[in-house]
Parts: sequence; structure tokens; C-alpha cells
Amino acid sequence: MADTWLPSLITATPQEGFELAITLSRRGVKYTQPDVDVLHKLRPEYANDHAALTAASQVVAINFQTVAAANNYWRG
Amino acid sequence: MADTWLPSLITATPQEGFELAITLSRRGVKYTQPDVDVLHKLRPEYANDHAALTAASQVVAINFQTVAAANNYWRG
Amino acid sequence: MADTWLPSLITATPQEGFELAITLSRRGVKYTQPDVDVLHKLRPEYANDHAALTAASQVVAINFQTVAAANNYWRG
Amino acid sequence: MADTWLPSLITATPQEGFELAITLSRRGVKYTQPDVDVLHKLRPEYANDHAALTAASQVVAINFQTVAAANNYWRG
Amino acid sequence: MADTWLPSLITATPQEGFELAITLSRRGVKYTQPDVDVLHKLRPEYANDHAALTAASQVVAINFQTVAAANNYWRG
Amino acid sequence: MADTWLPSLITATPQEGFELAITLSRRGVKYTQPDVDVLHKLRPEYANDHAALTAASQVVAINFQTVAAANNYWRG
Repeated sequence: MADTWLPSLITATPQEGFELAITLSRRGVKYTQPDVDVLHKLRPEYANDHAALTAASQVVAINFQTVAAANNYWRG
Repeated sequence: MADTWLPSLITATPQEGFELAITLSRRGVKYTQPDVDVLHKLRPEYANDHAALTAASQVVAINFQTVAAANNYWRG
Repeated sequence: MADTWLPSLITATPQEGFELAITLSRRGVKYTQPDVDVLHKLRPEYANDHAALTAASQVVAINFQTVAAANNYWRG
Repeated sequence: MADTWLPSLITATPQEGFELAITLSRRGVKYTQPDVDVLHKLRPEYANDHAALTAASQVVAINFQTVAAANNYWRG
Repeated sequence: MADTWLPSLITATPQEGFELAITLSRRGVKYTQPDVDVLHKLRPEYANDHAALTAASQVVAINFQTVAAANNYWRG
Repeated sequence: MADTWLPSLITATPQEGFELAITLSRRGVKYTQPDVDVLHKLRPEYANDHAALTAASQVVAINFQTVAAANNYWRG
């Protein structure tokens, strides 16, 4: 992965920060399984399994903690 | 998802902050499975499974950490 | 849920803070499954399953982190 | 639970802090299942299941974060 | 493991920090199972299991919190 | 457990801190299951199960957050 996909943790709004947290969560998967075809094949069973959806939301929540702290919670 | 659903992490009270944590947890699911019909179909088995309910409460707890920190724990 | 159940994260003692963390954990469940009859029906299988009990304790631990930070760890 | 079991998060040493984290983890279980007989019955299957042991260690780790922060990591 | 594999938590960019988080996550596995042949044998079933991929991404997210905090979120 | 196994959270390097996090994770298991024979019997099935290895790495990651914070991330 030579491309730059994470130049900064700073975002303009909380919502963009949440979307960055989703990107981080997906990248965490892609580093382990870089084959996009495999990921696409796994998606249907994944997206229809409530336990999997909650687990995904948990990873996003953890990454959002990081992004939100980086942005001082967009307080200013 | 072009709409704005997260303009701020600041809330007036801890309880509103907890409810925002619930919104964040649900959004984490919806970004992975945006099809509302699928989510509705999953709901009954989900809401009757104690492990799933505890897992959901855990995601809320993680997001509440973020919201509470953003609000300086509503100390003032 | 129009009632006020979380007016503050501040408690007099660590133990009250731990009990507030338990309240937060249960509320996280109730927002997903508000039907008290269903929750009561789930309770016996839940309370006799060691994995479920550990998972519950984990959610309490996460919420206790939040409450403890809010109270500056009751240091003073 | 009218007794006082958590008067403070402050401990003299990191090791006592770790042991307090274990107490917190067990209390998180006991609030959900206060029947000591049930807990004793669950123990053998619990203590011989590696996934359960790892899950228990995880709850201890989370509670230890709280206790360690409360004690400023026993730095001084 | 006498070799030095973690001289510092400081990285030049967030992306390098994320990659360090992946290294930390893999090292966490290797300390428990140092036999590289076993790890290679486990990999195919692992990399094709969506729950395993999400769990891996969660460990990366937790380690990334540490690395990001160490680097003051690369704010400067 | 009368012996002293955790005199301090301070380590000279990040790598020693990571190894301390592994010690903490194992101690979290041993407090629940002190019988070393049982732990040895569980080890083979444990060390060959990818989900168990990831779960172990997650506990290490959580404990490493604590150790890294205690050491101010070995920043300088």
C-alpha cells in the first residue's frame, strides 16, 4: 500500500470525522485481507448478520474516539 | 449520505449525550448496511437476543465516552 | 423516554459511580429493547450464562471509565 | 448491596491497583447475578474455557485503565 | 524475542502510525503463538472469515488510539 | 498471590512496555484460573485458534494503552 490514504486526522466537522472513522475501520480490514474480490464475496453474509453489524459499529466507535480527540471534539 | 446528521457533539445534558451516543451507534450500523428494509427484518431476532442487546449497549458505552469527553462531562 | 433518568454524572462516592455505570449499561439495553416483558423473559438464561455475565461486566467497566473520569476519580 | 465495598480508587501500589481491578470486574458480574450459588456452579466451566479466561482478563484490563489513571499511574 | 522491533511510538505521519498499530496487533498475536508455521496455516481461514477480519480491525483500532495519542494526533 | 510481580508501570523502552502489557494480560487470566496445570492443558487449543489469538492480542492492546500512558509514551 504505497498510496497515501491518511494524510491527517483533522476534519472540518464531526460528521466528516465519523466518516473518517469508517474509513479507518475498513482499512483495518483491508490490511489483513487486501483481496477486494474476497471482501466483496464476504459482504452479503456480513451485511445481513446483526452481530456483524454491531461489531462493525463498535470498531467505528473506537476509531471515532481517536478522531474526535484529534479534533478536540470540534469544540471551538 | 449527503444529509447532515451530526452537526456537533455538544449537548445540553448528560441524558441528551447518551441519546446522541445511541444515534452514533445506529449510524455505525447504517453506514455498513444502509438498506432500512434489511435492518427492520433483522430487528426482531436482534432485540430478543441477550448477547446482541449487551453488544449494543457496549457500543453505546464506547460512543458515550466520546460524547461525555466532548462535553467535559457536563461538569460546569 | 421522556423522563429524566440521567441528570448528572457526578456522584458522592466511587461506589455510587459504579452503580451509575450499571444504570448506564442497563439503559443501553433498554433503548434497544424497551419492552420490559421481553427483558424479564431473557433474564434467566442471561444470568446463568458465564459469557453473558462477563460481557455485562465489560459494559459496566466501560461506563465506569466515563463516570470515574467525570468525577476526577474522586481524588480530592 | 448496602455494604461499602469501594471506598476509594486509590491504592498504594500498581499491584494493589490490579487487584482492585479484579474486584471491580467481579462486582460487575455480581450486580447482574447476585446469587453466589449460581456463580459457584458456573465457575468450573468458566475457569476451564480459554475464551472465558481471555474475556475475563479483558474486563480486568479495562478496569485497570480506570484504576491506573486514578492513581496517576503510581508515577511519583 | 531478543530483537528490537519497537524502538519508538513516534511516526512521521498518521498513516505510518496506523501501520505501526498493525504491527503492534500482529506482535500481540506472535507473543502468544511464536510459531510462524502455525500462523501461516491459520491465515486462510482467518482472512476469509468476516468476523475475524472485524475483530482484527478492532485490535488495530485500539492500538491506533495509543499510537495517535503518543504522536499528539500529528496535529502540529 | 503474596509475591510482588508489579512493582511499577514504568519501563525503559516501548518494547519493554509492550512486554509488560503481555504480563498484565496473563496475570488477568491467572487471577481467575491460578492452576498452572489447567492453563497448560488449555494452551494448545488456544494457540491454534485464530479467534483466541486475536482476542489475546486485544487484551494486550488494552493493557498497552495503560502502560504507554503511564510512560508518557516514551516521548523523550
